[in-house]
Amino acid sequence: MSRQPSHQAARKGGVTVAVCQIAPRIGDIEGNRLRIRTAVETAAQRGAHVVVLPELAGTGYVFTDAQELRAMAQPPDGDTIKEWEALAARHNLVIVGGFAERGDDGHLYNSAALADPTGLRATYRKAHLWNGEKTWGFSSGDGPPPVVDTLYGRIGFMVCYDLEFPEWVRLAALDGAELLCGPVNWPLYPRPKGERPAEIVRVQAGASVNRMFIAVADRTGVERGQDWLGGSVVVDADGYPVTPLKLGEEAVLTATLDLSEARNKAISELNDVHADRRPTLYGHSSRDGS
Amino acid sequence: MSRQPSHQAARKGGVTVAVCQIAPRIGDIEGNRLRIRTAVETAAQRGAHVVVLPELAGTGYVFTDAQELRAMAQPPDGDTIKEWEALAARHNLVIVGGFAERGDDGHLYNSAALADPTGLRATYRKAHLWNGEKTWGFSSGDGPPPVVDTLYGRIGFMVCYDLEFPEWVRLAALDGAELLCGPVNWPLYPRPKGERPAEIVRVQAGASVNRMFIAVADRTGVERGQDWLGGSVVVDADGYPVTPLKLGEEAVLTATLDLSEARNKAISELNDVHADRRPTLYGHSSRDGS
Repeated sequence: MSRQPSHQAARKGGVTVAVCQIAPRIGDIEGNRLRIRTAVETAAQRGAHVVVLPELAGTGYVFTDAQELRAMAQPPDGDTIKEWEALAARHNLVIVGGFAERGDDGHLYNSAALADPTGLRATYRKAHLWNGEKTWGFSSGDGPPPVVDTLYGRIGFMVCYDLEFPEWVRLAALDGAELLCGPVNWPLYPRPKGERPAEIVRVQAGASVNRMFIAVADRTGVERGQDWLGGSVVVDADGYPVTPLKLGEEAVLTATLDLSEARNKAISELNDVHADRRPTLYGHSSRDGS
Repeated sequence: MSRQPSHQAARKGGVTVAVCQIAPRIGDIEGNRLRIRTAVETAAQRGAHVVVLPELAGTGYVFTDAQELRAMAQPPDGDTIKEWEALAARHNLVIVGGFAERGDDGHLYNSAALADPTGLRATYRKAHLWNGEKTWGFSSGDGPPPVVDTLYGRIGFMVCYDLEFPEWVRLAALDGAELLCGPVNWPLYPRPKGERPAEIVRVQAGASVNRMFIAVADRTGVERGQDWLGGSVVVDADGYPVTPLKLGEEAVLTATLDLSEARNKAISELNDVHADRRPTLYGHSSRDGS
């Protein structure tokens, strides 16, 4: 036997989350900055409290090589994040987005940052690298997904392929994230007719097994021959989407959420998605080699 | 960026998996045995090599108390499993199904068994108990999900709510399960219009993040006022259903699978859903208390 849906708590105003499905252009740093500013302003006009931008929103994604990537990467105190800090302060909101980071250790990271009206609150380096990222010179991060107390709730974040590791999503949830933000760049792949993209299905599952909201900002457009899905979505703590799909379109999607629902992990009289875990039995498989 | 779909390997015959959506009646041990036999025979006639039965298929689910449960529970060498062994031998197939186990330790378990033409191969005791199971006197098991080499492939199994713990599904996948069988009893709950039940969404995700087939046999009917979903489904290694939904109906659903696809964990030139894991970073959260 299995779960029952949560009681929908009354929304007393609620937190409005915007996912910005924009189309960055590779290397067009100024243009991408304008695209981001425009999307954040649109989100703010629609009442957004939390705004999520795609992965590598400032630079674009499809680099040709490490040299090109290195030329575009910035430190967390570079112009890209400074602009997000300014936007967060101007509109009194939280921004989570992805950027190409030039680390103080000289390495390059596929990173994300969370800025709020007080400035940069946390950065994160993608721990699970996707395909070309491994050849363009990105190093993988070793730190857990940050979870930050903000004006609008406790917010965690991670980047794209990270979301496909349930262990990683679980870490953020166990650290108390009510809302997990995911800057992503989901490539467009074929799927069976009538099926929702599996990327979204996995996000739905991650939300439901943790009773945690998840907001994913995907990119759209075509970049150096790469088609993008444009699958931005906000999923509720029961695992159901609460925004319409705008596959392939540029769009700012918003949803107003009662994040307090994510603090209630009960799914039946005697079940709780976190308390029911049996972590002492989850020891690494012998195949993990650790 | 994220995954690409697997290459669909050519099916050289393939393995036909049947999920039996039957309607056991509580306490009707003889009637349930007949229902199971009929379903297995139907599956065999349709060419099934692997047959999955629901959770607690022999007894029904909604017990009133521990006394009633104890009166119906059987040891693994009781009549219920003996019948499954005989059916497996007669039809040369693998049967995975759920039964109420009276353990040699005197405890009661919500268990599952795998029988093949050579007899009983493995039993498993549900590790994550659902709601009333905690009050009817079931104890939780402490062993991992079994993964068994059979005539038709490497098959793992677990029971219902277990499937909602990605750590548990991962264990079976890391132990090399090509097909995970899930005897379940999914209660019927409301869901948003047009949405696939979240139980199925979670199974889809579990399949796709592990590139492992999953076959779930759910029950149907109404039992002591409890409505059941009847959401039996077979999901492929990309996470997409390959059987039609027959919500609420009695049905034997079959799908023919190339289980060798599950041995290929690659999802891009440089990505592998298991090799990309970073288990040293997945240490238990401080909230685990362990």
